[in-house]
This record gives sequence, C-alpha cells and structure tokens, in this order.
Amino acid sequence: MQKISFYHTAFVAYLEENIRSKEPASLYDPILYILGLGGKRLRPILTLMTAEAFDDDYKNALDAALSIEIFHNFSLIHDDIMDAAPLRRGQPTVHEKWDINTGILSGDAMLILAYQLFERYDATTFQDLAKLFSKTALEVCEGQQYDMDFENRDDVSVEEYLKMIEFKTAVLVGAAMKMGAIVASASKGDQDYIYEFGRLLGIAFQLQDDYLDAFGDPETFGKQVGGDIIENKKTFLFIKALEFSNDDDKLQLQHLFAINPTDPADKIETIKQLFQSSGSADATRNEIENYTKKAFAVLHELSIPENKKEVLRAFGNDLMNRRV
Amino acid sequence: MQKISFYHTAFVAYLEENIRSKEPASLYDPILYILGLGGKRLRPILTLMTAEAFDDDYKNALDAALSIEIFHNFSLIHDDIMDAAPLRRGQPTVHEKWDINTGILSGDAMLILAYQLFERYDATTFQDLAKLFSKTALEVCEGQQYDMDFENRDDVSVEEYLKMIEFKTAVLVGAAMKMGAIVASASKGDQDYIYEFGRLLGIAFQLQDDYLDAFGDPETFGKQVGGDIIENKKTFLFIKALEFSNDDDKLQLQHLFAINPTDPADKIETIKQLFQSSGSADATRNEIENYTKKAFAVLHELSIPENKKEVLRAFGNDLMNRRV
Repeated sequence: MQKISFYHTAFVAYLEENIRSKEPASLYDPILYILGLGGKRLRPILTLMTAEAFDDDYKNALDAALSIEIFHNFSLIHDDIMDAAPLRRGQPTVHEKWDINTGILSGDAMLILAYQLFERYDATTFQDLAKLFSKTALEVCEGQQYDMDFENRDDVSVEEYLKMIEFKTAVLVGAAMKMGAIVASASKGDQDYIYEFGRLLGIAFQLQDDYLDAFGDPETFGKQVGGDIIENKKTFLFIKALEFSNDDDKLQLQHLFAINPTDPADKIETIKQLFQSSGSADATRNEIENYTKKAFAVLHELSIPENKKEVLRAFGNDLMNRRV
Repeated sequence: MQKISFYHTAFVAYLEENIRSKEPASLYDPILYILGLGGKRLRPILTLMTAEAFDDDYKNALDAALSIEIFHNFSLIHDDIMDAAPLRRGQPTVHEKWDINTGILSGDAMLILAYQLFERYDATTFQDLAKLFSKTALEVCEGQQYDMDFENRDDVSVEEYLKMIEFKTAVLVGAAMKMGAIVASASKGDQDYIYEFGRLLGIAFQLQDDYLDAFGDPETFGKQVGGDIIENKKTFLFIKALEFSNDDDKLQLQHLFAINPTDPADKIETIKQLFQSSGSADATRNEIENYTKKAFAVLHELSIPENKKEVLRAFGNDLMNRRV
C-alpha cells in the first residue's frame, strides 16, 4: 500500500484522462466544471486503498473509484440546487454559474455516467458493484429527503438524526471501501466488515463535522465556523442540548433557532455556550469517540495482515484529526 | 402473443403490486403519484410484446418493462420542471403539486429504482440490460439538452432536429423492444434489428406527434392542438416551412415565432396555412411515411415467424393511426 498522496495523484490523473467534454457541451461542461473544483477525493482514495488492502492493484479499482466520485459530485449539484447554495468549494455552484435546468440535467447525466463506469468489469463484478451502488444511492436520496423534512420539524430524535447522517453521508463511505473489496475479490465476510468500518467511520466523521462547525478553528476548518448555527440546522449538538437543558435554556435555544439576525455573532456565541453548559458538546465528543472506536474494532475481524490494518487505522486517525 | 389490452392490464397490475410507498413518504409518494397518472404505457407494452415475439413468457420481461416505464416517468418529472409545465396528463405536475426540490429528488430516486429492477436477472442479462439502459438514458439527456439549446437558436437544421427527436424519444422505444429481446435471449442480430425497428418507428411517431399538434383533430388528439405553435417550438414542420418559403413568408414565419399573443387563434391559423402552402405539411407526411416504411422493412430481417412479425406490424400501424 502507498501513501494517501500517491492515490490522490493517481486518481486525479485518471479522472482528467477519462472525463472529457463532448457534445452537447451545455450538458458536459458543467460536469467537467464540478469535477474540476477539487476537494479531498476521500471516497475514491478509500476505494483504491481498500483494493490494495485486499492485495489487488489499485489500478483495477480506478473505474469504481471514479464512479463513486462522480456520484458524490452529482449529489452535490442537486443538493446545492435544493439548498439554494451559491458557493461550492469557494466557487459558484453549477446552478449559479449556469442555471437550475442545467444543474438538474447535468446531474442526471452524472448519475448515469457513474453506472457506466462499472461496464469494464466482468458481468458478476458489474452486478455486485451496480447493486451496491443502487442501494447506496437510494439511501443517499432518502438521507437528503430526511434532512429536508427535518427542517420543518422540531421533534427530531437523536436516533432519527443519526439515521439521516448515516444515509446522507456514511453509507457512501462504506460503499466506497466495499467497492475496492469487490474489485479485489475479497470474501463476502471481508466485504461486509470493510463496509461496516467505512459506515461507522463515516458517522464519526459527520458528527465531527457538526462539532467543528461550532467549535472548530476558523484557520483550519474549511468552512465558515458557525455556519450550521446561522442556518438553524438541527445537528446532534442542538438535539442533545435540547435534551439536556432545563426549560429556560430550552426556550432560549428554540428562540435562537427560529431567528436570522443580520449580525449572527452574538447568537453564535450564546448557542456555543449553551452547547457547552448543557453537556451537549461533551456528549458529541463522546459519540464521535464511540463511533471511531467501533469502527476500529471492526478492523480486528478482517482477514488481512496487521500492517495493512494499521494503514487503514492510520487513515481513520488522520481523518478524525483532519490532517487529510 | 396476446392483444395489446392484455399486456396493458398485466403491466398495470404488476406496477401496482411492485411500486408501493414507503418511508420517507415525501420521497416515495410523488413516485406513486406520477406512475398512477396513467398514460398509454406504450414502452413497457412493447417490451412485453417483444419478449413474446422471441418466444419467451411476457412475465419474464415485467421487471425490464417496469424499469422502462419508471425511467420514462423520471424524465417527465425532470422535463416538466425544466419546461415549467403546470399539467401532465391533465393533472398537476409533481413540482406543482409538491415543489421543485421534491421533483428533483423523487426523480433521482426513480432513475436509481429503474436500475434496481434489473437485479432479479442473472449477471449477464443484468449487464446487457443495464448497459443498454445507461447508453439510452444518456442519449435521452442529450436529446433534452439539444431541445433546450435549440430554443435559443434560429439556425437548427433538419438533421439536427431529427437527431434531437431520435435521442429524446426514439431510442427509448428501440431500447424498450431490445430489452424484451435480451430477456428472451434473442440472437445479437435480432436484438439489433428489433432496436432499429423501434428507433425508426419512434422517429415516425414523434414526427407524427409534431404534425398532429398542428393538424390533428381536437376531439381525438390528446393534447391542445396548436400547442407547439403557441410555444414557438421549432419542429420539423417549422424548419421545413422556413426552408421552402420565399423571403416574405420566411419573415412572416420568423415574426410569428417571436411573438406570444394573448389570443393565439389568428397566429395558429396563419402558421398552419404557411405550413400547407410552403409544402412543409406534405414534406412532413412524406417523412413520417418514409420512417414507417423503413421500420417495417427491418422486420423482414428478423428470424421470427411471419405471424409474429404481423403482430408487430399491426402495432406499428395502430400506433401511426393512433388507435393505441
């Protein structure tokens, strides 16, 4: 197995070779644009690493990795329309740079292109990959729907929230890794374990994203700190704070999550204090720790050499410390 | 082989059995709604008929037929958003009844569900169906993009127009039939011929739709007669009329296709007269005739008994006389 930067470079080179614009340019140019905006390429890197963890050449997993990355970017285009987001990775979103119709149709084409990338595999591998892909993609849609539904509800439970982030984010991490295992012809047992590792790590990752959104260092966290608070997003931090608060604090939290002040600085500060004083911040850190531990525990079940497990564990630690 | 009404009934029963709502209802209810609006179910019926033309039981083709119908309805939901259409089959479109975000996400889920329907076939059949599906679905997206691009151009050639309707409409008819042939394990040669039959018939069908939009009987043509003229759609009739007209008539055509009068009755009448006097109406009828004949000629190449070819020919004739 190689360093993460090696897989990153190999993946980006493969993406640039294989995704070219063609006619009608108005359909394919936006696809090139979003795929060219960069990003950490975490999911495809996990596919390539996993293939090598199971003793295959990462090159055999490049098409599956590209499929995962195209699907992820398809979901970004459509989600950005639904969220009316103007920026993605610091650049205009597709529907801002072109228009909503372009965002819808180029996104649709990407979902189809993601399936086409499995076509170079033999029929059995193709079916295994496409089945996993469809199941996962549908869950991602369901997760996005739950996320939108939750905006209009004030009784979302912790269990519902965890299911939402599992579907919206974590299952794709699990699927990215399982695809590497499928391509490498790992045993069904190992395929399931590596999926579980990715899924649990994905939940930990999303909870940490929620945590850092409030308590991250503005210098190193890629997004605007306090963004979720400004948008009144009912994250794990908020749900737990409500649960742990007395009636007065509960009312204040609910009030603050119903307003949109022009200058949100005071609101952010008060909410962060309530997250701390209620014990919600601690509970969130505990939950991140729990999911990370559960993910690492699954590694013990894998029938791969200890040094390869160590690479996966190191990746997980890097991810949770946000060094990648 | 059975009567069309038999396949229609069998298909609708299968659809109702297999497509049920589930959680989140806000994602799946719109899918049930659009699939429940009815329609002629031409494409899935063609899949079932073709499977029986190649000596298989239509029941084995029900999943492929349902996939085609779900894909077709996915494209209707997203196209209706792009066209800002308020009505579909006389009922509110999905984005009108719910909202645009629901239309986008439920449509996405349908595209994935269409792929999932291939999962009950063996790996080789699965791959054949999914490959054909992806190629076709991407062409449908390209056709829709060309259609939108053409709205902003006044130099669309007949060749470009024919390619647009081929991609937007005809390839799905070809694919619907080829899927029936794939499920029935027809030879590769027969698979290609039946695709060609469907593709050519699909072009004839769309040209006839354009023709009937102007010259159809309001009593029997399902849509508003003159609808394309009101929307200034540059159909085959318009492009040919421009080509055949002298400079004066050309200017009048271009002027009339640049305005949106509150009462369009006079505009529709004048345009229809220009379609007739220029020879464009005749040229369109000729082109429909040509494509229909080319489609029927392909039937000669098929290695199926003459009585089964006759059923396909009768279906084509019914279609072109709009009795189905």
